[in-house]
Amino acid sequence: MSNVKLAVIFYTMSGTNYQMAKWAEEGAKEAGAEVKVLKAEELAPQSVIEANEAWKATVEKTKDVPVATSADLEWADAIIFSIPTRFGNMPSQMKQFLDTQGGLWASGKTINKVVSGMTSAQNPHGGQEATLLSLYTSMMHWGAIIVSPGYTDEVLFGAGGNPYGTSVTVDQDGNMVEDVEGAVKHQAKRTVTVADWVIKGIQ
Amino acid sequence: MSNVKLAVIFYTMSGTNYQMAKWAEEGAKEAGAEVKVLKAEELAPQSVIEANEAWKATVEKTKDVPVATSADLEWADAIIFSIPTRFGNMPSQMKQFLDTQGGLWASGKTINKVVSGMTSAQNPHGGQEATLLSLYTSMMHWGAIIVSPGYTDEVLFGAGGNPYGTSVTVDQDGNMVEDVEGAVKHQAKRTVTVADWVIKGIQ
Amino acid sequence: MSNVKLAVIFYTMSGTNYQMAKWAEEGAKEAGAEVKVLKAEELAPQSVIEANEAWKATVEKTKDVPVATSADLEWADAIIFSIPTRFGNMPSQMKQFLDTQGGLWASGKTINKVVSGMTSAQNPHGGQEATLLSLYTSMMHWGAIIVSPGYTDEVLFGAGGNPYGTSVTVDQDGNMVEDVEGAVKHQAKRTVTVADWVIKGIQ
Amino acid sequence: MSNVKLAVIFYTMSGTNYQMAKWAEEGAKEAGAEVKVLKAEELAPQSVIEANEAWKATVEKTKDVPVATSADLEWADAIIFSIPTRFGNMPSQMKQFLDTQGGLWASGKTINKVVSGMTSAQNPHGGQEATLLSLYTSMMHWGAIIVSPGYTDEVLFGAGGNPYGTSVTVDQDGNMVEDVEGAVKHQAKRTVTVADWVIKGIQ
Repeated sequence: MSNVKLAVIFYTMSGTNYQMAKWAEEGAKEAGAEVKVLKAEELAPQSVIEANEAWKATVEKTKDVPVATSADLEWADAIIFSIPTRFGNMPSQMKQFLDTQGGLWASGKTINKVVSGMTSAQNPHGGQEATLLSLYTSMMHWGAIIVSPGYTDEVLFGAGGNPYGTSVTVDQDGNMVEDVEGAVKHQAKRTVTVADWVIKGIQ
Repeated sequence: MSNVKLAVIFYTMSGTNYQMAKWAEEGAKEAGAEVKVLKAEELAPQSVIEANEAWKATVEKTKDVPVATSADLEWADAIIFSIPTRFGNMPSQMKQFLDTQGGLWASGKTINKVVSGMTSAQNPHGGQEATLLSLYTSMMHWGAIIVSPGYTDEVLFGAGGNPYGTSVTVDQDGNMVEDVEGAVKHQAKRTVTVADWVIKGIQ
Repeated sequence: MSNVKLAVIFYTMSGTNYQMAKWAEEGAKEAGAEVKVLKAEELAPQSVIEANEAWKATVEKTKDVPVATSADLEWADAIIFSIPTRFGNMPSQMKQFLDTQGGLWASGKTINKVVSGMTSAQNPHGGQEATLLSLYTSMMHWGAIIVSPGYTDEVLFGAGGNPYGTSVTVDQDGNMVEDVEGAVKHQAKRTVTVADWVIKGIQ
Repeated sequence: MSNVKLAVIFYTMSGTNYQMAKWAEEGAKEAGAEVKVLKAEELAPQSVIEANEAWKATVEKTKDVPVATSADLEWADAIIFSIPTRFGNMPSQMKQFLDTQGGLWASGKTINKVVSGMTSAQNPHGGQEATLLSLYTSMMHWGAIIVSPGYTDEVLFGAGGNPYGTSVTVDQDGNMVEDVEGAVKHQAKRTVTVADWVIKGIQ
């Protein structure tokens, strides 16, 4: 593999999507990619976070993760987004990150990024498909090449068989219901593999 | 309740969506509605059906169910569609039924129909959200009023919490994985309740 | 008409969606509704706004418009959202407003709101359909009743025939390309008319 | 370029999507691809077609175009679908073609096909975005690599700037309103270029 650069950009309150991002990092590194794990900047006031024990703990746990920037997108050949669903759509924090990339977009630098997405929800059908499809709609505006997992590996069936991207259900105690580690790693490998083809092709 | 007329229109190979249609019928009748259960016309050749034991049995079981027509849509105040997913979208059989309603649509007779949808898939995330959202997109062209279940009742959480409509996973033996009977009945009642408001409002 | 309460909630940088919101207000008032025009809270830093003449002028022009709150949603029987597209999806500012309604949602107070959406884009097909469909996906999570215009009036064809909601193209000078005033007013009337039916039905 | 094989599969009543398919063929051939232009099989009865002069003429004009088969999909490295919108979704004829590819799909032979879509509608916003997004949803089930045009060339703006695929409005006389020939050719070239990268990468 050529030196594929992957940005895994997540937003999380409970830590789920951070865990998924780290699994994606592992999978992509195993495939030989260079990986940056990055977080979307928080929009919530500190006081709101402080009032929620789980959220506060997650913020503490991810405090050394760099905030994603336009430069990271420019650097990346491939991008994996990992986001919880908020009413069947990405959280405002990730949307704000995308919305502020108008300059990068206008300069054509989002073109041909290889993109894939992952998500989580509190209900099995709580937006796990809709959130990913909405993400890909935005990515089409960017001229990205969209590589969802489809049914490209047996491991995906055990994770719920979401062809748009790995998705997990989170129970009321904040635990993941399905075992999605293998699916995430497969998705990450698939993403960087296609990115490798694109890099070599563009050269 | 005024005399709400509900058409429950399904397509099925395995019988799942017929079962869901019958539960919807029960729920709507309990709420006082007049109900027609109808099937979308088959497009597959008889020889293909004959070669598939389960499909053949379903066709036999539903042979006395009338095929849905434009007249049924005109008659109905509310419509519940029950369809399996085919690659994240409704089956061609149901699409064909919709596509052939151009005359009804052009005459304005699809306007203000109260519409809701149900679906099934082989994987938990195998298009159960996407199929319903796609159905509603078409219904917006019809000028329909869209009433999905959202999270309007506790029973919906047990059925997987799909806010776009009741959805069920069907295992390899053709059995439903989740217990969705209560969710279907709730959805049917909600649909005819809103239809009742619309009927009274229009008068 | 009963005393329908309509919240028209917009986000705008160029003023387009404020203008559309005001037309919606006019249309709804003509139909007898009580209307609040409200804006989604800004997320951009003041310095960024100051550096953009057109944006700065819009912020000045809308400075007396109240910021939308949960209390406004609770008050409203019907909601019309008016939003520019950002990469085929609503702007982060409006998403942030939706995301912070978790409390209202959890208490069941978003159920049966009658909802409709309007949008604008720089290109004729720059997300004008996708943005509205994505909005409605979120509204299904809320248990809302979705009333898009469909093809319910001749005036809609002149405005581009977007069945999901009125949409307008904005040229490089910030001017609206299509004449959508009539379409907006029709959509507003349709929305409050259905809300009237729902109010009377619930009583 | 390696010997990229492109299948351009259309459905048409008015001839518009056949014209677009032929422009795609031209563009792809200029880029060095081998191209098959294919049609989805008709579902309408002959008597219905005969009763519609324009439709009958189109059927006559396309009578020598081969009907698309599973073998064509297996043969192809890239697929461009060209379809009119029917209520914001592909026509049943194309859906039927997709639905009958279950065997190909189950054998993994749809994986990594490079896919792009084009569409037409009678209204500027009559489903031109929704239809393409729905097509891509199905393609994700196939494990396809999705390459929409985004804003990858200036020519796209003149064609309406639909980032999901070239779309055209057809007036009441059956004429295309926008000049989309250049956009179609660009999209075709982009599609086969990415397919070329994928082919070389897989080798």
